Amino acid sequence: MSHGKQFTLFTHIGGPNGWKAAFVLAELGLTYESVYLDFGKGEQKAPEHTKYNPNGRIPTLVDHKNGDFAIWESGAIITYLAEKYDPEGKISVKGEKDKIAQLQWLFFQASGQGPYFGQAVWFKKYHPEQLPSVIERYQKETVRVLGVLEAVLSKQEWLVGGKPTVADISFIPWNNFAVDVILTDFPEFNFEKDFPATFKWHTALSSRPAIKDVWGQRDALLK
Amino acid sequence: MSHGKQFTLFTHIGGPNGWKAAFVLAELGLTYESVYLDFGKGEQKAPEHTKYNPNGRIPTLVDHKNGDFAIWESGAIITYLAEKYDPEGKISVKGEKDKIAQLQWLFFQASGQGPYFGQAVWFKKYHPEQLPSVIERYQKETVRVLGVLEAVLSKQEWLVGGKPTVADISFIPWNNFAVDVILTDFPEFNFEKDFPATFKWHTALSSRPAIKDVWGQRDALLK
Repeated sequence: MSHGKQFTLFTHIGGPNGWKAAFVLAELGLTYESVYLDFGKGEQKAPEHTKYNPNGRIPTLVDHKNGDFAIWESGAIITYLAEKYDPEGKISVKGEKDKIAQLQWLFFQASGQGPYFGQAVWFKKYHPEQLPSVIERYQKETVRVLGVLEAVLSKQEWLVGGKPTVADISFIPWNNFAVDVILTDFPEFNFEKDFPATFKWHTALSSRPAIKDVWGQRDALLK
Repeated sequence: MSHGKQFTLFTHIGGPNGWKAAFVLAELGLTYESVYLDFGKGEQKAPEHTKYNPNGRIPTLVDHKNGDFAIWESGAIITYLAEKYDPEGKISVKGEKDKIAQLQWLFFQASGQGPYFGQAVWFKKYHPEQLPSVIERYQKETVRVLGVLEAVLSKQEWLVGGKPTVADISFIPWNNFAVDVILTDFPEFNFEKDFPATFKWHTALSSRPAIKDVWGQRDALLK
């Protein structure tokens, strides 16, 4: 690619999932060019993108130093980066059991947090009808997921291996959406008071220089 | 454990996700005891289960030959079994790129098929209100996911590595629900006609002796 960087990241400004990949790339000091697809124009479903990703969603990562190897699904992208480009375990674990536990949390994030938090945002902001019983369903599921995290993080500082890893990092974007969008009108919700360990963990993760820098890029692009 | 088998699988008769793990255990000829949790009694959220799985959902696998190592999230369970107990690649791939591609499809199944097909079932069968715009949303997403599979499977017989793997197997239970529950009243839906390559693939997978045997156990338990 003419941009000269190692990776091309096909992503989207507003959606949360591309930022998970950006966080990990930044944490590992890898060079990448973000291509922000315009969903209004259907660019994610255009052949230039679906030749890499038949799902027509973001993110998609292309590794130009590995034969233009293309990967989609953010959980798989993150695992690839951790396995191939984090040999010293800066933000990942290496033992057999720890690696499976890390993967387990990535699956919980991808299947238990992302889709349900995403439905909450859809029905609050975009669905053509206002449907209180549906919004409530997904708000309650958001609170349930935060409760699962709290049950674990009240007993240990990080999800796996006693240090911050890609497993922890993967939860950041959707937890931001929980606080900023999904639960703004949920009765008596108070992130810090209701989920103190999760709040502390989320705040510590969000304060990491690479994470702050990448999320700041998002804020600037949304302005 | 007193049952003398290598694994205990905490699972549920009706839900699809436990059967993914059972398929892979059976394909690999591993011995396991299924513990069917009674959701009506909240057994999945009881301490006997949440000590292994803080999410309080199924499946959860305990490997008694690996220090009672407990894993939850079906995608992580399947990956663990493939990596540790399928050294010859009977139903998994081994090369670096193939392994990431296999994982990518497991993430697509877990995040793109399971949750959305699951929402379709919820709103068709269990939600207290009948909400046509919501049912339609998830039926259309079910059809879209089948279309993603069709686009790939019309060009290649299997998802990864030119052979049936855990990636393919993981899609079976929810695709059964798509045909048997979700799309029964979807206008003019015809699995075989609309998605011929996916139909052929799903039929071939479902005809494998281990898969037939395990799904037959489910049918017997549901009677």
